[in-house]
Amino acid sequence: MTILDRQDAGHIATLTMNAPDRLNALSDAMLAALHGAFDTIAEDDSIRAVILRGTGKAFCAGHDLKEMQAGRQAPDGGAGYFKDLFDRCAAMMQRVQSMPQPVIAQVHGIATAAGCQLVATCDMAIAADDTRFGVNGVNIGLFCSTPMVALTRNIPRKAAFEMLTTGRFLHAAEARKLGLINRAVPMQTLDAETRSLAQMIAAKLPTAIKIGKSAFYEQLQMPTADAYAYTGAVMVENMLDQQTNEGITAFLEKRDPDWS
Amino acid sequence: MTILDRQDAGHIATLTMNAPDRLNALSDAMLAALHGAFDTIAEDDSIRAVILRGTGKAFCAGHDLKEMQAGRQAPDGGAGYFKDLFDRCAAMMQRVQSMPQPVIAQVHGIATAAGCQLVATCDMAIAADDTRFGVNGVNIGLFCSTPMVALTRNIPRKAAFEMLTTGRFLHAAEARKLGLINRAVPMQTLDAETRSLAQMIAAKLPTAIKIGKSAFYEQLQMPTADAYAYTGAVMVENMLDQQTNEGITAFLEKRDPDWS
Amino acid sequence: MTILDRQDAGHIATLTMNAPDRLNALSDAMLAALHGAFDTIAEDDSIRAVILRGTGKAFCAGHDLKEMQAGRQAPDGGAGYFKDLFDRCAAMMQRVQSMPQPVIAQVHGIATAAGCQLVATCDMAIAADDTRFGVNGVNIGLFCSTPMVALTRNIPRKAAFEMLTTGRFLHAAEARKLGLINRAVPMQTLDAETRSLAQMIAAKLPTAIKIGKSAFYEQLQMPTADAYAYTGAVMVENMLDQQTNEGITAFLEKRDPDWS
Repeated sequence: MTILDRQDAGHIATLTMNAPDRLNALSDAMLAALHGAFDTIAEDDSIRAVILRGTGKAFCAGHDLKEMQAGRQAPDGGAGYFKDLFDRCAAMMQRVQSMPQPVIAQVHGIATAAGCQLVATCDMAIAADDTRFGVNGVNIGLFCSTPMVALTRNIPRKAAFEMLTTGRFLHAAEARKLGLINRAVPMQTLDAETRSLAQMIAAKLPTAIKIGKSAFYEQLQMPTADAYAYTGAVMVENMLDQQTNEGITAFLEKRDPDWS
Repeated sequence: MTILDRQDAGHIATLTMNAPDRLNALSDAMLAALHGAFDTIAEDDSIRAVILRGTGKAFCAGHDLKEMQAGRQAPDGGAGYFKDLFDRCAAMMQRVQSMPQPVIAQVHGIATAAGCQLVATCDMAIAADDTRFGVNGVNIGLFCSTPMVALTRNIPRKAAFEMLTTGRFLHAAEARKLGLINRAVPMQTLDAETRSLAQMIAAKLPTAIKIGKSAFYEQLQMPTADAYAYTGAVMVENMLDQQTNEGITAFLEKRDPDWS
Repeated sequence: MTILDRQDAGHIATLTMNAPDRLNALSDAMLAALHGAFDTIAEDDSIRAVILRGTGKAFCAGHDLKEMQAGRQAPDGGAGYFKDLFDRCAAMMQRVQSMPQPVIAQVHGIATAAGCQLVATCDMAIAADDTRFGVNGVNIGLFCSTPMVALTRNIPRKAAFEMLTTGRFLHAAEARKLGLINRAVPMQTLDAETRSLAQMIAAKLPTAIKIGKSAFYEQLQMPTADAYAYTGAVMVENMLDQQTNEGITAFLEKRDPDWS
């Protein structure tokens, strides 16, 4: 396996982060591999859903601290490298949401700092019951400011503030109640549950999912009146798709749609 | 009963959607009736709270698919009709929030697609325990993009994303935990519980409710500093109302206010 | 004790509102004392966390209604005084979030109207199990429009709308589930639990907390892409701090950081 393994089955691509000795840290190589894989899959019409998981003891433990510290050797003390690193990381995170296919985080072990950000960024997430989530950079003097962007758009603000300033970990059940993940399941069913969710989405009309995912994030950032004007136009586009016509017709005729 | 029945009792108007054979679908006629009723009630000072309910097996199952499909017969394939339809629907939804009286959804059976949007749009909602909520248009190839506007302003985003892309239904208990409804109650007490909530609001000073409801949605869309500047001015206006003066005076004198 | 008592212990300042006969109402004097204390502490590098509590039966019951009614004696009927009052109150609330140290509300008894707003405004809150929270101004004809700004940025909108229009109180357990407070604890452990949370924060690198708290509220008001650009720059600044370098180095060397 390379640092990021891709396996396709049916219409589902499974990306496996594979740097277990570094707890799948988001090193320069891992960030590039993830961004590249998302770019490739975004153009691949055969893929309708993506699962993101990790090998070893953790889903992802955030940035690669050794690599970051090495960046300080540059004449500018690392300023340029750090800026570039956080730009690349933010670009990868936003790529998750801008690609047409839903991305599901399959989480186990720990998801910390930028690893927790990755979970918050994925469209959906299912975690093993004993997973722990944290934005604990504050413990080493590095406040999780970029992970905070994703975290505070998923969970209520007082809970987010506490996690960020105390470094306290959430167990999976708490993460589910707060809205950080969709479900917590036993480790032995984690693969099957995540695949089942991906398959449910892969069985839908791909253009409807693509239209909808894009509109989901766009309208969230608009005032309500603008969001309605925008999504109204999206609905018209969706209605004029011939496969949607077939879907509605089939429903009214009480038969399965022919979307082949 | 017409397609939308209005019954007033005390200061409460109850609107009952009455197209049970079509699961109270938001047909052109139903949308016009709802928008018209809201316009009329908005100007009616005798009404202080509105209950919105439906006859038959469902609260509301969303748009009228047969009518929509018929719209395709136009020379433009329905493009103009669809645009107009979604404009009218969004205008009706926004009318719910712009009218001075609080609107409470009394929900039973199912509330799906634009029917779920209607629940999310109402200021408050009480549902029978066995109600199911869904934005399941994706199952027929029509992503619930406009319902999403209301849904994502009520519940955490990962839960909303899952509902929208899988078509999965929420039971009432789950809808309550996520924030889509205020309460789930047994079907036999649904009428009484909803009326009790409406009566509690009808007993308040109407100008305070009117001022407050309007400010509620306005300030939600502002940065915090702007929201404070705006609501500060609202508070001054509220304080200068003579009935508010009476309300505060009565409180300080430990007696009931004379708001007759 | 004066109207607002300050006691420092370790790096923690405890502010105690002390007007128990008025349920610690936010009178002109109390607002000035609070704003002044926050200004002073903001400049005090020895303080790393703030606890805000009250003496007597209540945390805080909101504005001082007697004082407000007296304001009506002015030639303008109070218009100028009320505007100034809500401006000063909003400025004090925003000062809580703009100061570098986290502020924790230690809540007991009741927190109503602007008192509930104060809880919602603090970065975190811990409450005694039997605390009740309300924005019940509507009962006397004064809708809690300014408290609503803070409340609706903490809890889901349908729950907020109900509290505001019915005056219904939340018990601490419900307040916790909705996100208004971080934890509900038995009254006898309230002091210790709040202090423990403050100490946890006081043990972190102060510059990281300061950078992070400021970024927390700034980024919340930005579109996602802007929030990433902004927090990326914050991360670079944080990385270039020599104490953060020491924190990361110590972590990689599996030793405690020397932040003295």
